[in-house]
Amino acid sequence: MRAIQDHYPPTFAHCYGCGPANPAGLHLKSYLLEDRTEARFTPDRRHSGGVPDNVYGGLIASLLDCHGTASAAAFANRARGRALGDDGPPIRFVTASLRVDFRRPTPLGAELLVTGRLVSLEGRKAVVALALAAGGETCAEGEMLAVELRT
Amino acid sequence: MRAIQDHYPPTFAHCYGCGPANPAGLHLKSYLLEDRTEARFTPDRRHSGGVPDNVYGGLIASLLDCHGTASAAAFANRARGRALGDDGPPIRFVTASLRVDFRRPTPLGAELLVTGRLVSLEGRKAVVALALAAGGETCAEGEMLAVELRT
Repeated sequence: MRAIQDHYPPTFAHCYGCGPANPAGLHLKSYLLEDRTEARFTPDRRHSGGVPDNVYGGLIASLLDCHGTASAAAFANRARGRALGDDGPPIRFVTASLRVDFRRPTPLGAELLVTGRLVSLEGRKAVVALALAAGGETCAEGEMLAVELRT
Repeated sequence: MRAIQDHYPPTFAHCYGCGPANPAGLHLKSYLLEDRTEARFTPDRRHSGGVPDNVYGGLIASLLDCHGTASAAAFANRARGRALGDDGPPIRFVTASLRVDFRRPTPLGAELLVTGRLVSLEGRKAVVALALAAGGETCAEGEMLAVELRT
C-alpha cells in the first residue's frame, strides 16, 4: 500500500519530515485505515532529548505535524468520495496550529506509533486529534488545525 | 557570553535540538537579555517544508521547544536571584505542553530569530510566550507550559 505522502503532488513533496522528494529527510509514511491514520517510526539514536534514553521533543512535534497534515489530506479525500491516487486534483493541507501535550518521556530505540483521528472537517479546515505511543503506552497527545492549500 | 544551554547539567545536555553534549545535534544557543530571551538559527537547506523554499514545521516547533525550556530555566534562575553558572543546583525545565501557531511560511536560507518572554512563573511551572521571525516578520508564535525537573 502506498503511503499518503506518496500521493503528494511533487511540487509539495519536499518536506524534511515526510516528503518523498527530500533525499535527506525522515520519510515518515502515514496510512489511512478504517477509522484512523497510522504511521510507524523508529528514531535514530542521535535524536535524543536532554537525557540520552529519551526522544527529543522537537522530533515528537515533527512526527505529529507531518502525520497530522497527511491525515487531514486523507480524511478530506475520503469525505469527498475520492480515492488516494485517483486522477482528481491533489489535496494537500498545511498546519495552521499544532498543540503537543507531552504525557511522559518517549523512549529512544523503540518503534513509535503515531495515530490520527478526524475531529472535524469544514470547508478547507480540518481538526485532527493526534497521539504518539511506544510499546502500547501513550507518550504524547496533540491536536492540529490544518488548512487546505490551493494547489 | 555563554548560552543558557551551556549551563545545563551534563546529564541533561544531550538534546538533539540544543544539547552541547549531542555531537550530531543542532546546537541551538539561547541567551537571556533584559526582558526576553533570544536565539538565532539558520536552518540547513535540507530542512525544507513541502516546498523547497520554506522551513518545515517540525523544525520550527523544535526551535520553539528548545528555546522555550531554556528560557524557562533562565527566567526561573533570575527570579530566584541567581546567576547562570553560579555554584547553586542546576535548573532544568522540560516541556509539558507546546502550542505553535504558524502565521506565514518561514523562508529557508534566512537567519531566524526566536524570542521568549515570561508569562508566569509559579513554583515549578513556567509559561513562556514564543515567537519566530525572519527578516523582521513574525512567521510563527507559540506558548509553552514548562515544568522544572528535579535534578
